[in-house]
Amino acid sequence: MKTVIVGGVAGGMSAATRLRRLDESAEIVVFERSGYVSFANCGLPYYIGGVIEERDALLLQTPASLGARFGLDVRVGHEVLSIDRAAKTVRVRELASGTESDEAYDNLILSPGASPFVPDLPGISRALTLRNIEDTDAMSDALAAAEASGGPTSAVVLGAGFIGLEVAENLVHRGWDVTVVELADQVLAPLDPEMSALVQARLEANGVRVLLGQSATALGASDLTLTSGETLPATIVVAAIGVRPESQLAKDAGLAVSDRGGIIVDASQRTSDPSVFAVGDAVVKVDAVDDAPTANWLANPANRQGRLVADVIAGRAQAFPPVLNTAIVGVFGLQAAATGWSEKRARAAGRAIRVIHTHPADHAGYYPGAKGMSLKLVVDAATDAILGAQGVGESGVDKRIDVIATAMRGDLTASDLVDLELSYAPQFGSAKDPVNMLGMIAENLRDGLTETIQWHELEAEVARGVQLIDVRTPGEFARGAIPGAINIPVDDLRGRLDEVDADSIVHCQVGLRGYIAARLLAGHGKRARNLDGGYRTWARA
Amino acid sequence: MKTVIVGGVAGGMSAATRLRRLDESAEIVVFERSGYVSFANCGLPYYIGGVIEERDALLLQTPASLGARFGLDVRVGHEVLSIDRAAKTVRVRELASGTESDEAYDNLILSPGASPFVPDLPGISRALTLRNIEDTDAMSDALAAAEASGGPTSAVVLGAGFIGLEVAENLVHRGWDVTVVELADQVLAPLDPEMSALVQARLEANGVRVLLGQSATALGASDLTLTSGETLPATIVVAAIGVRPESQLAKDAGLAVSDRGGIIVDASQRTSDPSVFAVGDAVVKVDAVDDAPTANWLANPANRQGRLVADVIAGRAQAFPPVLNTAIVGVFGLQAAATGWSEKRARAAGRAIRVIHTHPADHAGYYPGAKGMSLKLVVDAATDAILGAQGVGESGVDKRIDVIATAMRGDLTASDLVDLELSYAPQFGSAKDPVNMLGMIAENLRDGLTETIQWHELEAEVARGVQLIDVRTPGEFARGAIPGAINIPVDDLRGRLDEVDADSIVHCQVGLRGYIAARLLAGHGKRARNLDGGYRTWARA
Ligand SMILES: Cc1cc2nc3c(=O)[nH]c(=O)nc-3n(C[C@H](O)[C@H](O)[C@H](O)COP(=O)(O)OP(=O)(O)OC[C@H]3O[C@@H](n4cnc5c(N)ncnc54)[C@H](O)[C@@H]3O)c2cc1C
Ligand SMILES: Cc1cc2nc3c(=O)[nH]c(=O)nc-3n(C[C@H](O)[C@H](O)[C@H](O)COP(=O)(O)OP(=O)(O)OC[C@H]3O[C@@H](n4cnc5c(N)ncnc54)[C@H](O)[C@@H]3O)c2cc1C
Ligand SMILES: CC(C)(COP(=O)(O)OP(=O)(O)OC[C@H]1O[C@@H](n2cnc3c(N)ncnc32)[C@H](O)[C@@H]1OP(=O)(O)O)[C@@H](O)C(=O)NCCC(=O)NCCS
Ligand SMILES: CC(C)(COP(=O)(O)OP(=O)(O)OC[C@H]1O[C@@H](n2cnc3c(N)ncnc32)[C@H](O)[C@@H]1OP(=O)(O)O)[C@@H](O)C(=O)NCCC(=O)NCCS
Repeated sequence: MKTVIVGGVAGGMSAATRLRRLDESAEIVVFERSGYVSFANCGLPYYIGGVIEERDALLLQTPASLGARFGLDVRVGHEVLSIDRAAKTVRVRELASGTESDEAYDNLILSPGASPFVPDLPGISRALTLRNIEDTDAMSDALAAAEASGGPTSAVVLGAGFIGLEVAENLVHRGWDVTVVELADQVLAPLDPEMSALVQARLEANGVRVLLGQSATALGASDLTLTSGETLPATIVVAAIGVRPESQLAKDAGLAVSDRGGIIVDASQRTSDPSVFAVGDAVVKVDAVDDAPTANWLANPANRQGRLVADVIAGRAQAFPPVLNTAIVGVFGLQAAATGWSEKRARAAGRAIRVIHTHPADHAGYYPGAKGMSLKLVVDAATDAILGAQGVGESGVDKRIDVIATAMRGDLTASDLVDLELSYAPQFGSAKDPVNMLGMIAENLRDGLTETIQWHELEAEVARGVQLIDVRTPGEFARGAIPGAINIPVDDLRGRLDEVDADSIVHCQVGLRGYIAARLLAGHGKRARNLDGGYRTWARA
Repeated sequence: MKTVIVGGVAGGMSAATRLRRLDESAEIVVFERSGYVSFANCGLPYYIGGVIEERDALLLQTPASLGARFGLDVRVGHEVLSIDRAAKTVRVRELASGTESDEAYDNLILSPGASPFVPDLPGISRALTLRNIEDTDAMSDALAAAEASGGPTSAVVLGAGFIGLEVAENLVHRGWDVTVVELADQVLAPLDPEMSALVQARLEANGVRVLLGQSATALGASDLTLTSGETLPATIVVAAIGVRPESQLAKDAGLAVSDRGGIIVDASQRTSDPSVFAVGDAVVKVDAVDDAPTANWLANPANRQGRLVADVIAGRAQAFPPVLNTAIVGVFGLQAAATGWSEKRARAAGRAIRVIHTHPADHAGYYPGAKGMSLKLVVDAATDAILGAQGVGESGVDKRIDVIATAMRGDLTASDLVDLELSYAPQFGSAKDPVNMLGMIAENLRDGLTETIQWHELEAEVARGVQLIDVRTPGEFARGAIPGAINIPVDDLRGRLDEVDADSIVHCQVGLRGYIAARLLAGHGKRARNLDGGYRTWARA
C-alpha cells in the first residue's frame, strides 16, 4: 500500500510519521513544495524578532532525519501540480530542475495548508507575507537590509489578527516603528471589542500605532496610502489580512470544495473521493457550537487530523470531533485567548445568551505577584451550555481557557463550573478559582437570583431615566464615575434604602459588590440590575 | 429563621455570606473560637517565611466588615461547647470572660475544620503547629526570639505533607537549618514515589535534610530524638504530621461520625439531624473514583460546601459531588500536583490499571525558556476512565492537572484527551499539548498498539533474561545506562533487526523513541515492551 502526501508540515508530516508507526511496510512519499518540512510555522514571527535566535530551532526535522527514523521518502522542492483520480496518480514537478513525473498512490493525503491572502492593490508586489521558511528568510533579509542602510525603519502590518499582531510585536522588538492597519473596528476578531480593547491598549502602550476601520489603497516604494487618504511611511509592508485554503489542486481534481474554498471532508477526513483524504488548514471543519461548516487555521487540529487520517488509512476507525477554535496569542506580555463563540457571533446567530465578565486575579490576592485578568463567558440562555469564553491578562489566562475548553468538550454546563475541583495553593490559584466564580455567576443568572445589564445596554437605560447607583466607595466614585450615577456605597445601602428607586441599575468596579447590592435590594423588594463586569468593563469599551 | 454557624473561616464564612445574599432577613450568627475570621489559612506558611510581608494581608475580612456588608453577627473568641439538639440551642463560652450562654437556632452549620495531629511524645508540648493566626503569631515569635538570641536556628519539621513542606521551605527562606522527618518512605503521600522523588531532590538541593522512614521518639529542650536513635538539634519543632476532623462537638451531640472521626453528611451536607449541617475539613466526603467515604482537607471543597449549604437552607436544592482531591504545592520553585488516585492507591484497591509517565516541556521546545515537567496518568484498564494524574515541574503543571481534573469531571476517557483543543502559541503550550500526548499514549495502550513496562517491573524481567535494548544515541548510552542494556539507536534498528530477540524490552530517555522502536519491531513480528517514562523515570525511582 502506497500513500502519497502533499505538504510536509503540521498535518502532512503528522500523518506520515503516524502511518509509519502503524504500518512498518507502508510505502510513504511526502511532497513538499518549499525547501523545508516539519518546521515550526508558529515560531516564525519570533525568529523575525530575535526571540528565537537560531534559525535551526525552527526546523524540527529534515528529510534525512525523517528518512532515518521513519523510512519516509520526503521530497522537498517538489510541487504536486495535479491529481489524476482515475489513474490514481499525481503529477509532480521538481522545482529546481523543472522535471515533471507521475507518482502513483493507493491513498492520497492532502495537507497543503492555507496561503496568506494578499489584496490586489497597486504596488502590492513588495508586500511581504509569513508562512514558511523562505518567507521568513525574505523578511529577515529585507529588515536587515533596511537596518544596514541606516535609512528609515517603518513597518506597516496589514491585519490585526493573530499573526499580524505577532509580527507587529516582533518588529517592535527589532526596533522598528510599527503601524497596524485593520479594516474591522477592533483588533483580534475572535474576541469581542471590550476584550480586544485591552490588547489594543497594550499594543499602543508599546508604541504600535493601531488604525482601525481602514485599509490600504496603494503601496508606494516606501509608503502606503490608506482609505482615509493618509499616507504612512512604510519601509516594509507585511500582509497578514488572513489566509485562504490552498485548495486549487483539490478543486482542479473535481473534489468537493466549499464556497469559501475549503476542501470538504467527512469525520474520517475523507474527501468526495474515497481514496483521497485532506487535513489541516485546507479543509472545512465542523463548529462545535452549531455543527455548521467552519474554518480553522490552527496547529492542534491540523496535527490531530494528520494523525487521525493515518489511523483511518491503516484501518483504524476514528472520527474528528467538531472544533472549538481554541486559540491564544501573546502580545507584549499579555495573553489573549478564546474558545468557542464570542458574544457578537452568538448574537449574529440570533442565540439567546447570557454574558458574564469578571476581572479576577491569576492567584490569591494575599500572595505577592497576583496579576489581574479579564474573563468573559458566553452561555446559552435556553440550555445553560457554555458557548464560548475569552480571556485577556498577563498570566493564567491560558489555564482558564483550557479548563473551559475541556469543560465544553465534556459537555459541562456553565453552572457545572462551580463544581470543578481545581488545584489551589496561593501562588497558583484561588480557593474559588476564576473558573468556579464564572460558574457561580452563571448559576445565579440561570436561577434568576441576579439580573445583569451589559456595558453596551447601559446608556439607553440611563437615558430612559433608570436610576444608576454606583456602590463603590466615595473615593472610587471621585476618581471616575459613569455619567448620571449617584453614589451609595454597598455598606451603607441598608441604611439608605429610601434613596433607591423600585427599579434601578447598580454597579461597582468589577461586578462583585454590585451583585451583593442587587441581592440586598432584591431582599427589600426592589429590582436592581447589576452592570456586568462593573466600571472596568464599561470604561474600557 | 435563625442560622448559627460554628467556625468562621473557609466553610463557615462562605455559608454565612451566601446565606445573606439569598435571604436578606435571615438571622445569622457566627461563632469563632479563635480571635479571627475569614483568614487565609493557606497563606500562613508564607507569612512565616516573609513571602507575605504584611500580617494584615492574611485577614480577608473582620467581624466589623462582615457586619457592615452582610449584616452578620460574628463573634470571635467564642467557643461552642455543646449542642442541645432537642432544644435546638448551642452552649457558647465567651473565652475572654468565661461567660457561658445558650444560643437558639433553627438551622445549625458546623464548619469546625480539622486540628493538627500532635503525637503523644515526651516533650511534645513545645512542638508548634500551624492552623490559625494565633499559631502563626506564636511560630513567628518563637522564630524571632531564636534569631534575636543569636543562638542556633535549627528546625525539625515532622511530616512531609503539603503543609510540612511549605513550612520547611519558608523556614529555609528565613535562613534556618531545616530537617524534615517523615514516617513514610517518601515525601508527599498523594504522589507516587517516583514522582515525589523529584520533590525530595528539590528540597535537598535547597539544603533541607529529608529523613524518611523515621519518626520522633522524644523532644528535648533543644533537640529531638528519632526512632533510629539519632538526635537532631531542634531549636523549634513543627508538627505537621496530619490533621484530624474537629468533630468532638458533633460526636458529643450524638451526630453520626465515621470511624476516622469525620462527620457523616448527605449530598446536601445534612448530618444525621436534619437541622444540623456540616461542611469542610470536618466532614466525610465521597471519593469520585470509587464512591467510598474519603477525607479531604482542601479549601476549594470547603468553600464550595459552605456556599452549597446556604443554598439548601434557603430552599435551593443542591448536591455536592464526589471529590477528586485535586491539590498542588509549591516547593522551592517546583509545582507538585495531583488529582484523583495515585498508582499505589489504585493497586492497593486491586484495580487493573494502565500507567503512563511522560516528561514534556511546558511550551514548545523551539521557543526559549521551555521548562521540563513530569506527568503521570493512571487509567482504568477495563474502562479507559481516568483514575488520576500527577505532575511535577517548574511551570505549567497546574494547568495540566486542572485540565485533567476537568476532563474527569466531564467523564472524558483517557483516550478522549487526544481530542482536547487546548490553546497553543509557542510560549504557552505545544501543538500537541502534554495532555493530548497523554491521550495518544493512552489510546495506544488501550488498543494494544504498544505494551509498556513500569520502572518497578524492569529489574525482574531483566533478571529473567529478557533482552533490554537502549535505543538512545551512543553518547546518551555512555553517559549512563541501565545495567544489562545493550545499545541499538532507534535510527539504526531497521538495519540491525537480527540482533533483536523475539521478545525484548526497549527504552529511551523519556519513552518516545522507545515507543517508536517498539512499533518498528512490532512491524517486524517482534514483541518489544517499552519502558514507560524511559531512563528518566527509571533513574529517578
Ligand atoms: C506565522 C504563523 C504563525 C502561526 N502561529 C500559530 C499559533 O501560534 N498557534 C496555532 O495553533 N497555529 C498557528 N499557526 C497556524 C498553523 O501553523 C497551521 O494551522 C498549521 O501549520 C496547518 O497545518 P497544515 O498541515 O494544514 O499546513 P502547513 O503546516 O502550512 O503545511 C502545508 C504545506 O504544504 C505545502 N504545499 C501546499 N501545496 C503544495 C503542493 N501542491 N505541492 C507540494 N507541497 C504543497 C506548503 O508548502 C506547506 O509547507 C501559525 C501559522 C503561521 C504561518
Ligand atoms: C497552614 C495551612 C495551609 C493550607 N494550605 C492549603 C492550600 O494551599 N490549598 C488548599 O486547598 N487548602 C489548604 N489548606 C487547607 C484549608 O485551609 C482548609 O481545607 C479549609 O480552611 C477548611 O475549611 P473549614 O471551614 O472546614 O475549616 P477552617 O477554615 O479551619 O475553619 C474552622 C474554624 O472553626 C473554628 N472552630 C472549631 N471548633 C469550634 C468551636 N467549637 N467553636 C467555635 N469555633 C470553632 C476554628 O477555630 C477554625 O477557625 C491549608 C491549611 C493550613 C492550616
Ligand atoms: C515533527 C513532527 C514530524 C512530529 O510528528 P510525530 O512523530 O507525530 O509527533 P511527536 O514527535 O510529537 O510524537 C508523538 C508520538 O509519540 C508518542 N509519544 C510521545 N511521547 C511519548 C512517551 N513519553 N512515551 C510513549 N510514546 C510517546 C505519541 O503517542 C505519538 O505517537 P502516536 O501518534 O503513534 O500515538 C510533526 O509534528 C511536524 O512536522 N511538526 C512541525 C509542524 C507543526 O506542527 N507546525 C505547527 C506548530 S508550530
Ligand atoms: C472572604 C469570604 C468571607 C468571602 O466569601 P464570599 O463572599 O462567598 O466570596 P467572594 O468574595 O469570593 O464572592 C463570591 C460571590 O460573589 C459573586 N461574584 C464574584 N465575582 C462577581 C462578579 N464579577 N460579578 C457578579 N458576582 C460576582 C459570586 O457569584 C459569589 O456569590 P454567590 O456565592 O452568591 O454566587 C470567605 O471566602 C472566607 O472567609 N475566606 C477566607 C478563608 C478561606 O477561604 N480559607 C481557605 C483559603 S486560604
